[in-house]
Amino acid sequence: MADEKKMVEAITSRDVDFAQWYTDVVKKAELTGYTSVKGCMVIKPAGYAIWENIRNELDRRFKETGVENVYLPMFIPESLLEKEKDHVEGFAPEVAWVTQGGLTPLQEKMCVRPTSETLFCDLYSKDIHSYRDLPRLYNQWCSVVRWEKTTRPFLRSREFLWQEGHTAHATAEEAAARTEQMLNVYADFCEEVLAIPVVRGRKTEKEKFAGAEATYTIEALMHDGKALQSGTSHNFGDGFAKAFGVQFTDRDNQVKYVHQTSWGMTTRMIGAIIMVHGDDSGLVLPPRIAPIQAVVIPIQMRKEGVLAEAEKLCRKLKDAGIRVKLDDTDKSPGWKFAEQEMRGFPMRIEMGPRDIASGTVVFVRRDTGEKTVVSVENIEDAVRNMLDEIQRNLFEKAKAFRDSHIYEADDYETFRRIADEQPGFIRAHWCGETSCEEKIKEDLAVTSRCIPLKGGEPEEGAVCVCCGKKAKYRVLWGKAY
Amino acid sequence: MADEKKMVEAITSRDVDFAQWYTDVVKKAELTGYTSVKGCMVIKPAGYAIWENIRNELDRRFKETGVENVYLPMFIPESLLEKEKDHVEGFAPEVAWVTQGGLTPLQEKMCVRPTSETLFCDLYSKDIHSYRDLPRLYNQWCSVVRWEKTTRPFLRSREFLWQEGHTAHATAEEAAARTEQMLNVYADFCEEVLAIPVVRGRKTEKEKFAGAEATYTIEALMHDGKALQSGTSHNFGDGFAKAFGVQFTDRDNQVKYVHQTSWGMTTRMIGAIIMVHGDDSGLVLPPRIAPIQAVVIPIQMRKEGVLAEAEKLCRKLKDAGIRVKLDDTDKSPGWKFAEQEMRGFPMRIEMGPRDIASGTVVFVRRDTGEKTVVSVENIEDAVRNMLDEIQRNLFEKAKAFRDSHIYEADDYETFRRIADEQPGFIRAHWCGETSCEEKIKEDLAVTSRCIPLKGGEPEEGAVCVCCGKKAKYRVLWGKAY
Repeated sequence: MADEKKMVEAITSRDVDFAQWYTDVVKKAELTGYTSVKGCMVIKPAGYAIWENIRNELDRRFKETGVENVYLPMFIPESLLEKEKDHVEGFAPEVAWVTQGGLTPLQEKMCVRPTSETLFCDLYSKDIHSYRDLPRLYNQWCSVVRWEKTTRPFLRSREFLWQEGHTAHATAEEAAARTEQMLNVYADFCEEVLAIPVVRGRKTEKEKFAGAEATYTIEALMHDGKALQSGTSHNFGDGFAKAFGVQFTDRDNQVKYVHQTSWGMTTRMIGAIIMVHGDDSGLVLPPRIAPIQAVVIPIQMRKEGVLAEAEKLCRKLKDAGIRVKLDDTDKSPGWKFAEQEMRGFPMRIEMGPRDIASGTVVFVRRDTGEKTVVSVENIEDAVRNMLDEIQRNLFEKAKAFRDSHIYEADDYETFRRIADEQPGFIRAHWCGETSCEEKIKEDLAVTSRCIPLKGGEPEEGAVCVCCGKKAKYRVLWGKAY
Repeated sequence: MADEKKMVEAITSRDVDFAQWYTDVVKKAELTGYTSVKGCMVIKPAGYAIWENIRNELDRRFKETGVENVYLPMFIPESLLEKEKDHVEGFAPEVAWVTQGGLTPLQEKMCVRPTSETLFCDLYSKDIHSYRDLPRLYNQWCSVVRWEKTTRPFLRSREFLWQEGHTAHATAEEAAARTEQMLNVYADFCEEVLAIPVVRGRKTEKEKFAGAEATYTIEALMHDGKALQSGTSHNFGDGFAKAFGVQFTDRDNQVKYVHQTSWGMTTRMIGAIIMVHGDDSGLVLPPRIAPIQAVVIPIQMRKEGVLAEAEKLCRKLKDAGIRVKLDDTDKSPGWKFAEQEMRGFPMRIEMGPRDIASGTVVFVRRDTGEKTVVSVENIEDAVRNMLDEIQRNLFEKAKAFRDSHIYEADDYETFRRIADEQPGFIRAHWCGETSCEEKIKEDLAVTSRCIPLKGGEPEEGAVCVCCGKKAKYRVLWGKAY
């Protein structure tokens, strides 16, 4: 029984070796699979189904704001990549180059897109003529390639899946508003659907996207106290428009440059779900994103009537729109329980002959392990309520954890001590100079995560934790994935 | 008014220059857009929304048969591509090679996947151990690259979107059954959803997929009499399994090779929709695949109450699950009518002050141009019935066209005359020898499209139309995209 053996082997404890725990969960929950393509990953059905749910829900939210989907080529000719100076400097060192097509060398080499600003600008420069053509609110779902040296499933791999939105607007104000709007779409999605609390903020000059005027980010805290940048929204102003000649004739008959934004979220969110909610029994999926929300496990399955009742229950729940699965395999109930836990199904419903006789079932929550005996009358509502409760609890738990891991550092020694000893976010004042940011990174191995949109202003009279000059911002720092 | 000008310019007549007509429709219906990446295409919102509907509906049908989605790397190391002899010979001349990652040359070059058999085999060889691990029914949605010399939007481009299913089974029978099952999924999808009649058949040895034991195909006839291969399903037997060492321990404790299949459908189906249903006014979308099924066009829109009534109607139809759009732009009604036609929305609903006074609206069908005055009572049912009727009519029309363009050739001179003068499918007997197939291709510029599953057996005593020897099959021939 290869499967059973796999499941029975304990996974590493989360608190003993977080990195190994992560690898174990990814493998044993069968989220990724083997490939001999170095640095890339195979996303298996259990992992891909989570991505499908992320995609569907985000896509719905995008479309509600007027966004339309498109598909652009995966290749970028070198000359196109080079048109925006900062952008090419940021990305050229980490792209994969195609130099041969069929049997002949290419006249101009092309990279596999690491991101598609240049291609969207290429399209917009031909497509946009008048203010009537604006705004353009395009998005694409695709994979991108960045030639990373060290990789980890979902968190950092040479190819990953994402969406990238690219918009063009008539005014700077509109572009700024869209940048903020999409940041909020990401933040709401993370909190409402993934049950992951996030801090909304702006990146410093040093940390912003190559070619952007301003980069906004949502930052989440993982269980090991490290930060994960979870979604970014960039305001390009008219920098790309000038580099690519994206102009339009405005209502006042003046020819102007458009103002652009881009924003993206990736498969690393699957990593975030694992690292925020998972525990020593495996994955824990928030109900709203879980491909399977409840698994029905018949007890004494071969006894007359048990399987039939379990099937009836499943149909009922399915008809009510609940994503339910019947586990009618020949494995033992204990094995099935362990599997439910490892794979992170939010709840299981146990149902044996005695339950059937008494018109009840047993609910077992994945998040707390709590068992409840529930009447089969109105079971749909009971399941729905339980799923809502689990969703709420996961968010509250993650938020309490996050909030209790935000530390304040008013002087460099405190900063150093916290950075060394207390994994989490650190709030500290900063003068705004890149030199201080670089010194902090070198000394303390933490980076500026963001200038929070709420609470990013300095306190009255505050000074930079590094140089002692007048503080400009109150920054959130941390070690990051 | 750049937009208005674009729409008013007539498109080339379908019967005057079919290729130019196709290009015009693709451009003016805004299905594709500009890119400077040679041989690739930009799929714009109107085109991508069709692909999303194709994907959603096919995906639903796949999942009903137990298929699960996964995602595999886009790169194939050269050594992996080379493992199956026929496969590498078929694909190596047309792949794009990545030779540099970041700033350093790769030790082993990798191609961008032209198809992923080799990657799935690589995964399966590590993932499958026991009969309990079978069947594996995986599919992925992605883009693939083939370095074509001449390209046309949707029909042939260096990168295109598709799905590729890859299954592994314990027995040859199961693999054969899955090959046929997926061919039928494709055929039913084409006929029921795209309103495109297809012939199900088997490819000859010469035309089959590189590395397959048998390739099955569905072939559709375009309006210019050329065939379009619309979906293929391959039975690999255990050829790939032997090349990649994909083995399992069966119930009888014997170690055996798996049997595999693969099957794919691509964005070229958007080309098929255009070329089967389109006319001199532009695109015609079958209702079941149309992103917008009905457009509501208010007449004398600025008159008191007209817009409000039109909005009310739209909400009503939306609530009934109909994909409806209100055109409340400042363009003239005539312009809006032309646009509905160009973009292929299946019907429009005109609504002016007089209609509102009499409690009616006007339906105008895209397929026939017919106008009907309809009461707003039960308008949801009326729209639904009209859409069903349009769907049915489009299929019937396409089928009648197809059936009237199948010709019989019992001797070579008739074959030559039909091939020269009568665009369409040609049914002709064949001995089964590749040499005859090659001669026919060279002489008459037609290729064997398939040996139809129904009607592919030879008639009693029939002889090969080329060499006069005993016929083995009755083949469908044609010019193809």
